[in-house]
Formats: sequence, structure tokens, C-alpha cells
Amino acid sequence: MGRATDRRGVQRIDLDAAGDGRARVRRQDTLAVEEPLEIRVGPGGPGRRKPLAVTMRTPGDDLDLAIGFLLTEGLIGSADDVHTAQLCAGADTPNTYNVADVVLAPGVPPPVTDVSRNFYTTSSCGVCGKASIDSVRTRSRFAVVDDPLVVPADTLVALPDRLRAAQRAFDRTGGLHAAGLFTAAGELVVLREDVGRHNAVDKVIGWAVRERRLPLAGHVLLVSGRASFELTQKAWMAGVPLLAAVSAPSTLAVELADEAGMTLVGFLRGRTMNVYTGGQRLSGTD
Amino acid sequence: MGRATDRRGVQRIDLDAAGDGRARVRRQDTLAVEEPLEIRVGPGGPGRRKPLAVTMRTPGDDLDLAIGFLLTEGLIGSADDVHTAQLCAGADTPNTYNVADVVLAPGVPPPVTDVSRNFYTTSSCGVCGKASIDSVRTRSRFAVVDDPLVVPADTLVALPDRLRAAQRAFDRTGGLHAAGLFTAAGELVVLREDVGRHNAVDKVIGWAVRERRLPLAGHVLLVSGRASFELTQKAWMAGVPLLAAVSAPSTLAVELADEAGMTLVGFLRGRTMNVYTGGQRLSGTD
Repeated sequence: MGRATDRRGVQRIDLDAAGDGRARVRRQDTLAVEEPLEIRVGPGGPGRRKPLAVTMRTPGDDLDLAIGFLLTEGLIGSADDVHTAQLCAGADTPNTYNVADVVLAPGVPPPVTDVSRNFYTTSSCGVCGKASIDSVRTRSRFAVVDDPLVVPADTLVALPDRLRAAQRAFDRTGGLHAAGLFTAAGELVVLREDVGRHNAVDKVIGWAVRERRLPLAGHVLLVSGRASFELTQKAWMAGVPLLAAVSAPSTLAVELADEAGMTLVGFLRGRTMNVYTGGQRLSGTD
Repeated sequence: MGRATDRRGVQRIDLDAAGDGRARVRRQDTLAVEEPLEIRVGPGGPGRRKPLAVTMRTPGDDLDLAIGFLLTEGLIGSADDVHTAQLCAGADTPNTYNVADVVLAPGVPPPVTDVSRNFYTTSSCGVCGKASIDSVRTRSRFAVVDDPLVVPADTLVALPDRLRAAQRAFDRTGGLHAAGLFTAAGELVVLREDVGRHNAVDKVIGWAVRERRLPLAGHVLLVSGRASFELTQKAWMAGVPLLAAVSAPSTLAVELADEAGMTLVGFLRGRTMNVYTGGQRLSGTD
């Protein structure tokens, strides 16, 4: 698809240019595309998939997004649980490729799409559709707490620049979040962008599911914004031992990371960082 | 409640301080609190409210958040549709005040909490719980297109500083989004903060619902981050004619603002801005 950005006419106002009589000029601006993706899930056979979620996302890597979403929501455990996944026509004409149709492998129970579990996610929302507090939490299959990963702090501080360098779209729109998966040596494995932070993470994880790389033991996941509860939970579901964010974490993100035995790093900027949990996985600081 | 921030122990790593043997020090850090709020809605009488949504939010102004959410989702039209709203005990002991119980006025139809409409929202998610693309859109009762608001560009560029000056919590955590409602003269009417952008906007709108100020004709809504589809839709539902964002809008935000006849301003920084729709509401640029 590749419709990550689009051009629009815009009036640019610069009050300091008012003396030139050119305070308001028309020009083209590049925007991040935001469109709904409906995720349908169910067994094989015509008409047997049910709408499970709508996420407001930036088009591209949509099947990874759908599969990553299903994995981080605990609805599938691996690529073996997916028979086929394809983009198909919705009610739109022409086909906007805004529906992801996921056929589960035989024997995989379809999600319960009742009142207790139903999803709609906006461009800034990850795990959606639960009506009670108890249903917010998912449980990871992976014992991240035992992951022996140790990363030199020197390696970690280099990652944000590497992420930005790889974000070709970022400089053009200013509107895309990024998630990057790195090795313990600081090599970028995969980068995904989206108007939604959670979507970028789901795209990374969906890619890893399809590549049969789960659990993501020994890896670092870096996100361009803040670390929320949902992003921490998604990282845990994929078995990531170290989640690093360029900006601040929330209290609940710290609590979940602590419970999971994950390392949570925030404010990763310049040559500094805050380590909220799991400081034993950082080396080279004395 | 007032639990907007909390203190946690953190390891601060500064590699440039490594020569002093003090590259890693323990200190206290202030974090934005993120906790789930379950919104229950229904008619009066014991046990008649049903869980409708869980949102991951920063505690504080929780009833405004619940009422703003119901309004922007089109489930209530005004304060008259709400009989009572209170924070009550969930299953937690002690009471965490993480449940908002909203009793609808007699005759107000309760929301349909079936598969087609059910909500769970994370800290960065606004309108959640819809399973098909058609259900994402809500319709505003207010004809924003006819709003004669005109704001001098000079007034608009002063608002971000005013918002930040009023954000007492911001400097302490770095993790809170803000939404501010301003008059056409640039006076701050109300400011709300949250780990979720949509929650901050819902808190502002819920306050306005309770104060019976809807539609918010002649007002400016400023958000600290980007302008997504959901934020634009929420502003429209409350009758706001001018939505301004410090950062970038998405394509769908621009399309919705255009359809609604709203003015959408992005990249409101310094003495500059981009006007994506409704440029007739900005004056003083030539």
C-alpha cells in the first residue's frame, strides 16, 4: 500500500513575515495518513470471520498490525495459530484495503466477541474493547524475568539516533510514532511507524510473529514517545526483556514492568536515561 | 483525588558523569499516574448500570471525564440526560475510586452494550469499542460551520505559552498531555491534563457539559500534542469551531474538520502555524 503520507494544501502563517505582506502563504504540506483498519477474525469458510476491532492506523504493514494485535491481546500464541491473513475489500468502493481478514488455524478458538471483549482502537490506542477493569490485563506466556540480557549503557544511548535515522517518513510529517527492535549489540532488526504508538509496536511484533522469532528474548524494543501500560504489556506479551522509551513512563507501566521482570528505561536522551526497573540489565556505568 | 503524579525510585544514568564514578545514582522521580477508570452507565436503581468502557487515565476530574466521554460518543446530549454521576467502589479493597457510575435521567435510552458498541480505551485512546468501520463516526448536533468566530493570529500564537504556564503538573512529570479551552480573546477558560490526550479533551468537554456551556461556539480548543481523527471528532461533538494543536494533524483529522466546517490549526509554535481548514477564522495576517 505505502500510503503512509499524503500531501495537502495548507495556509502557512508566519507573523514575523508580516512586514513583507506575506504573513499567510499557500503551500503543500505532507501529512501522516490515518485510516481505519477493521480486523476480522474467525475460522475458515465464507462469512465466518467476525469484526473484532477497528484501529485508526497509518496504512502499511497492515497484516503485521493485525497479527501483532492478536498476539499481544492473547488471542493467538504463534504463527501456527493463523491459517491465512489477507487484506480484502470492505464495503468501500473502490477497495480501500481497510479490512484485514484473519483465518485462524483449525482448532484455534475464535475470540469471544461479546460485551466483555470487543475492540475499537483509535490512532493512539492499543488494547481496546474491554468493559471491565479485570479484563484489561493479559498474561504473557514468556518468563521475561529469567532473560539474561545485559546491554552496555553506551549501546543503549546510541539507539534513539539510529531509530530516527531509519525513520525516513518522520522528518516529512512530524506526525509518526516509531517502534524499533534492536539486538543486544544495538543493531536495528526492524522499524515500524504509525500515527499510533501501539500500532507501531503491534507492527513490529506481528512481523516477529510471522518470522517465528518469538519470544523476543535478548532484544531491546525502543519507542519514540512515552511508555504507557499498554506498550509495556505488548512488549511483555512478545517476550521483550528491555523496553526503552524516549520520553516518560506512567506509574502503571513501571508497576507492570516490575511485576513482569522487565527492564524499563525512560527519558533515553543524549547520554542519559532513567532506569525504572531491572537495572541489572544495564552495564558499563561504573 | 488529586493523584495526578506519584514518586518512584529510579536509577539515573549519566554516562558523561562516569569519570566521577557516579554514572549511576539512585534518586526519586515524579511520574504521571495511570490507572483504569471503569465507566458504568444505565438507568436508576440497584445493579442497573452496566460497564460500558474502561479508560486508562490520570485520576482527577473523573466525573467530567465520564460525562465528556458519553457526550463525545453521542450517548448523551446535555447535562439534562444525566441524573447523577458518582465515583464508587469497584471490586478493589480499599476503594480505589476507579469506577464512575452514571445514572441516566428517566427516558434516556441506555447505550447498547453489545458487540457492535463496546468500549475500552487506553491512556492514549479516545473513542473505543466499535467493531466495524461504519460505527467509528459520530454525528454532531452542532452546526459548527456557521460559527462566525474570528481570532487574530496574534492571539492564537500566544495560547501555547499560556497553556504551558497553567500546566503545573507538566514540568514535574513530562508525561501529561493537556487540553485547554480558550475564549476568542485568548483567555483560558479551563485546562485539563491526562496521560491520554483524548481524556484531557473529554475532561474539558465534560466540565463544559456540567456547566451547561455547550455548544462551545466562539471558543478555541488547544491540545498539547497532535490532532488525530478522534480529537477532531470530540471537538466537533462539543461544537468547538477552532481546534489548534501544537503538533501535526493526520489526514483524517483534516478531512473531518473540513467536512464539519471547523478550523484546524497545526504546528502552532512560536509565531507560526499551519491552517489546514477554515482559514477564514484567522485574522490579522496581512
